[in-house]
Amino acid sequence: MITFYGYNTINSLKVMMFLMETDLPHDFVPINIRGGDQHTPDFRAVNPAGKIPVIVQDGKALTESNAILMHLARKTGWGLPEGVEDQLLSLLFYQASTQGPYFGQVEYWSGLAPKPNPDALAQYKGIANRVITVLDEQLANQDYLCGDGYSIADISFFPWLDHHEELNLSLAEAPHVQAWLARVKARPATQKACKLLEAYHLAPPKKPD
Amino acid sequence: MITFYGYNTINSLKVMMFLMETDLPHDFVPINIRGGDQHTPDFRAVNPAGKIPVIVQDGKALTESNAILMHLARKTGWGLPEGVEDQLLSLLFYQASTQGPYFGQVEYWSGLAPKPNPDALAQYKGIANRVITVLDEQLANQDYLCGDGYSIADISFFPWLDHHEELNLSLAEAPHVQAWLARVKARPATQKACKLLEAYHLAPPKKPD
Repeated sequence: MITFYGYNTINSLKVMMFLMETDLPHDFVPINIRGGDQHTPDFRAVNPAGKIPVIVQDGKALTESNAILMHLARKTGWGLPEGVEDQLLSLLFYQASTQGPYFGQVEYWSGLAPKPNPDALAQYKGIANRVITVLDEQLANQDYLCGDGYSIADISFFPWLDHHEELNLSLAEAPHVQAWLARVKARPATQKACKLLEAYHLAPPKKPD
Repeated sequence: MITFYGYNTINSLKVMMFLMETDLPHDFVPINIRGGDQHTPDFRAVNPAGKIPVIVQDGKALTESNAILMHLARKTGWGLPEGVEDQLLSLLFYQASTQGPYFGQVEYWSGLAPKPNPDALAQYKGIANRVITVLDEQLANQDYLCGDGYSIADISFFPWLDHHEELNLSLAEAPHVQAWLARVKARPATQKACKLLEAYHLAPPKKPD
């Protein structure tokens, strides 16, 4: 049995999408990171770094959403297209090193930060738009990011792209990304995962007075 | 034979450190990313995203430094401690998703950006310092990041930490990181890799007038 510690966050959604695709038995433990749940002694015993998502299996904790996806894919054989493991790992690292942090910084400087910062916001929107362009080129000749089959690479990139409107990032010049997004969103497992996490919506952070 | 496209950059150094540890035959092709080499048609044919490092082997290009490390480690059996592959992948993703981007943003807002931005700099120094704390805890009871043996996890985290002084990040409260850094730096392969890349020093970006 897998114990999955998460909340309605970008990286938790990746893990929930995988679990819904594969129907792997699991217990979900909500960790409200804006309510301070990550600082409780119980959760610190699971992950001293205080971050979600985490899965625990046979007493061993595993962190980093893309490492969790890779672990579960290897374990189940689902979501790992054959013969392209290097390319898949390269895509997962591109998501982790570039899409994740810079889409995250667009969100941060769009409203989470205590003060607006147009220069920082512009810097990160520029990087986020380049990611969209790279993905659009990648999807011009194939339905999914890593070859023709749906894989954990698609799961990894989906949650931030699904939030593009809230981030004021346009897909108008990325028709292939738009079509891919609709394709991934139409999957029953994606819908189920999003719905399950809806109940764990993060409150906006408190602004300083 | 491996063709390795890189320069004197953080992520290129990771690959060069691996090549020096293992003596794998390779051709090094310098790509001066501040001189525009990444935009030449020749290099775009290798990596349409215009990023380094890249390795090409048997006609196949592989991008993302940590994916390259993982590929080379699996191919050679070097730098992959046994029985901890999940933990190793989790560390590589932590480096890619957190150390890399936020140390990078400390560098960017410390002097590469067209204008100073104290709020952005403070934000990213805060995250970089938390990474140092997490690594120090990790290294309190073990000599290397992934168990007792030197691995590609250590290679992955070394280059940014070796630049902590230039980034004005202090290791004063991270004695275990200090000792680890000295240990990694003392390796002949590390010294050889740093020396080889010295010739390809990046010029500072041109400031707007």
